[in-house]
Amino acid sequence: IEQTVAGGAASKTSIGGYGELHLNRMNGVNGKSDKNQIDFHRFVLFFGHQFNKSVRFYSEFELEHALAGDGKPGEVELEQAYIEWDYAGNQSVQAGVFLMPVGILNETHEPDTFYGVERNNVEKNVIPSTWWEGGLNFKGELAEGWSYNAAVHSGLAIDVDGGKYKIRDGRKKVANAPADTFAYTGRVKYTGLPGLELAATLQYQDDLLQGQGSTLLGERALDATLFEAHAVYQVGDFGLRALYAQWELNDMIDAAKAGASEQNGWYVEPSYRINENWGTFARYSTWDNQAADAANSENVEWSIGANYWVAPTAVLKVDLTQQEVAGGKTYEGFNLGVGYSF
Amino acid sequence: IEQTVAGGAASKTSIGGYGELHLNRMNGVNGKSDKNQIDFHRFVLFFGHQFNKSVRFYSEFELEHALAGDGKPGEVELEQAYIEWDYAGNQSVQAGVFLMPVGILNETHEPDTFYGVERNNVEKNVIPSTWWEGGLNFKGELAEGWSYNAAVHSGLAIDVDGGKYKIRDGRKKVANAPADTFAYTGRVKYTGLPGLELAATLQYQDDLLQGQGSTLLGERALDATLFEAHAVYQVGDFGLRALYAQWELNDMIDAAKAGASEQNGWYVEPSYRINENWGTFARYSTWDNQAADAANSENVEWSIGANYWVAPTAVLKVDLTQQEVAGGKTYEGFNLGVGYSF
Amino acid sequence: IEQTVAGGAASKTSIGGYGELHLNRMNGVNGKSDKNQIDFHRFVLFFGHQFNKSVRFYSEFELEHALAGDGKPGEVELEQAYIEWDYAGNQSVQAGVFLMPVGILNETHEPDTFYGVERNNVEKNVIPSTWWEGGLNFKGELAEGWSYNAAVHSGLAIDVDGGKYKIRDGRKKVANAPADTFAYTGRVKYTGLPGLELAATLQYQDDLLQGQGSTLLGERALDATLFEAHAVYQVGDFGLRALYAQWELNDMIDAAKAGASEQNGWYVEPSYRINENWGTFARYSTWDNQAADAANSENVEWSIGANYWVAPTAVLKVDLTQQEVAGGKTYEGFNLGVGYSF
Repeated sequence: IEQTVAGGAASKTSIGGYGELHLNRMNGVNGKSDKNQIDFHRFVLFFGHQFNKSVRFYSEFELEHALAGDGKPGEVELEQAYIEWDYAGNQSVQAGVFLMPVGILNETHEPDTFYGVERNNVEKNVIPSTWWEGGLNFKGELAEGWSYNAAVHSGLAIDVDGGKYKIRDGRKKVANAPADTFAYTGRVKYTGLPGLELAATLQYQDDLLQGQGSTLLGERALDATLFEAHAVYQVGDFGLRALYAQWELNDMIDAAKAGASEQNGWYVEPSYRINENWGTFARYSTWDNQAADAANSENVEWSIGANYWVAPTAVLKVDLTQQEVAGGKTYEGFNLGVGYSF
Repeated sequence: IEQTVAGGAASKTSIGGYGELHLNRMNGVNGKSDKNQIDFHRFVLFFGHQFNKSVRFYSEFELEHALAGDGKPGEVELEQAYIEWDYAGNQSVQAGVFLMPVGILNETHEPDTFYGVERNNVEKNVIPSTWWEGGLNFKGELAEGWSYNAAVHSGLAIDVDGGKYKIRDGRKKVANAPADTFAYTGRVKYTGLPGLELAATLQYQDDLLQGQGSTLLGERALDATLFEAHAVYQVGDFGLRALYAQWELNDMIDAAKAGASEQNGWYVEPSYRINENWGTFARYSTWDNQAADAANSENVEWSIGANYWVAPTAVLKVDLTQQEVAGGKTYEGFNLGVGYSF
Repeated sequence: IEQTVAGGAASKTSIGGYGELHLNRMNGVNGKSDKNQIDFHRFVLFFGHQFNKSVRFYSEFELEHALAGDGKPGEVELEQAYIEWDYAGNQSVQAGVFLMPVGILNETHEPDTFYGVERNNVEKNVIPSTWWEGGLNFKGELAEGWSYNAAVHSGLAIDVDGGKYKIRDGRKKVANAPADTFAYTGRVKYTGLPGLELAATLQYQDDLLQGQGSTLLGERALDATLFEAHAVYQVGDFGLRALYAQWELNDMIDAAKAGASEQNGWYVEPSYRINENWGTFARYSTWDNQAADAANSENVEWSIGANYWVAPTAVLKVDLTQQEVAGGKTYEGFNLGVGYSF
């Protein structure tokens, strides 16, 4: 059955993929429900094509939660699909659907590249990863060790009248998405020292209501600004990841949801690679989607665990996690994972 | 379009694809709503396999509107999937799901092959493209420059009681589709002169109600006949496309929806290829899904625009479009597109 | 991340697929409805990757019923996705989502490998094929001609309160699936004589209610045991397949649905390969999802038909089928099919 896609120099089409199976065994405490679940969370295929030396296509096609259809838990998504044109030396532009240039995981999220069964909650609930939009994304080298992104693209759309206020609720995934207003993103990244990556991203969108206003908030525009910065440092077998992200929304949203005008979080994750197969990590995360007022709405999570790489891009994972969400409800338990990329 | 993932003689499996991102910025006038939308309208993959010299498989798998699942705007579709057998010299038959041999776009709809961001409304609303059915499709050469198709296949099914009357509403996409009655399609095509294609298609289905009758129309059969003819002419840098299509349904449907027994339209599209990268076009289209009575139900559309090919099969598009639908409601604005095939 | 599907010995990624189009023309008798339907029942793609000599990935991605999305008949499924590691000579383990090692069709269901347009109803309604779970699957050789599987994995979950009682209703497809309890499967297979396969599978799950209890049945656990055995014998042009499967559930389920604590069935299928292209078969099947009481709830099906292989893995099929379901309702008619694998 299995047919090798093989070939000579003529071949310009490429395929690849990644995926991850998660087993969650989390006990809820203080009124939080248990979560005992097994799920093939993500099954992803990459398709690429090189048109000529300076023009190429790249795409990421995904099945989430293993089963998509009417009444089914999953969905099929197109996370990336763009034409990339190298218009000058070390300068290119992507036109189409691309991943936002922000954070550590948003653009590089293959399971063999990070620790922990589940992706970290700061990037998920604040940035919000995985996040893609449609538009133009200019990128290139600024100087030795310095690179940039400058993008104009579709924006978020928050249904304030429907009770939504979290940034993550605003993702429209370029699927019949509103295009009344656009958003602007810039990133600067430094990779000039071996093992080190430093980056900062700024994004501005002038109206999260997409020019439509809202019954609760009236006709005014809900402008929003994202700031994110992170460091990744690998020195010998020791690694460190640290990230901070914050959204500042127009204060007027606080009238609909107290404190929602500031949504932020950070995490720090030291790790140690024991040998070719084993690595271990710890992570402290905290995030808050209603940070603008004095009420306690902060979430805190501790994770420790290990990866076992059966091959350089195939991995088994375990972690022990405790999560305390606002109101004192707590989750604690362990996660097991299987992941790969190729 | 089909890209051999290739190589040595041993490799018999091929993959390819196409896709298009659309940005619509259309203002509604006279009571028509605005449409400001961004959408990765179609993401398509081709998979093919050569079993032996005379038997092959071909398929087209599609994600429409970038996101499919419960409560999501898009859908996953299988538009083509057939075994093709060359049973004699220049004669073959396809068994499976195939695109109806009708019109200009229905079988060849990669975005780099046509002008305009959106597909033309005549082929969409009258033919109705993209249209596939399951059955047998015989094809071959009749004489030098002349070729034919003769197909027997599943048919349309219109839910008249549910208020549906447009031909486009009858597509069942070979997905748990009714097979009480079948349909018959013939096409003759002439490509004997360089740059010229002339073709005409005739289709007959003896009952669009699939033998089930209807509360509104009783037990009678709703027979229907499609006639389509078109010309494509490319002479030097100048091109011309012209197409006419009409459906004649049994008059009895007029009792359910006035004028629906005739549904027709035509368009003409001159174009000019300025150079390797740039081309420009204009298109006049008109179509009517209730053409059998005197009431004004005609739609008219003007488009002008340009394609910029960044590579032979990767294209950026723009058009200015004005559409006047029945009742004087009008859309006007512009569309931007990114498309590719490989 | 991007893996060039390229050239020579370096290429380690593979693709393949299978599919089948079904036309059913079945007349219902004694109050059973007709079924006149055409459907591209399954469109499947395989993606594999060899990481190194002893570690590989394999997956099966499927579109069922040709059209998936909100309000659409079909669904997208991930039927297999596992890492396989050869940890010792002739011994390996799969981690991820894998097909249950049970029956004839569950693991090998490409349409060119079996007779009959539709898969047989015993494996569908009793085993229940196609059936996959997530976990660990150890497999290997026991002795010359003898092999085994030993697996621990996610289990079924039956919604007794929602009126479900058939084993087939319990499949959760590793899609946000409950993981309160696990299941254990063992198989022994003998292939020591040319043309012969004998195999038996035993599975135990300690609670089909996944530790949640039920309003109807209380807090008790609903344990269940599957036993299956089959023979496949090919001697010259003559073939024979015979299979028996039974589920024993805790008797307590009979209080919710009479007789549901035993669900069983068997079939026997002689066949004859006339020549390279033609083969013919007959099949007698019987199955019962409420076999534990004296009430007549048995289904009986007779099929005869033929396959015509246009290529070794591309096939046209026809069968005449009569099915008598409980209560004397009867289906009779014919099915046509087109299938392929590569």
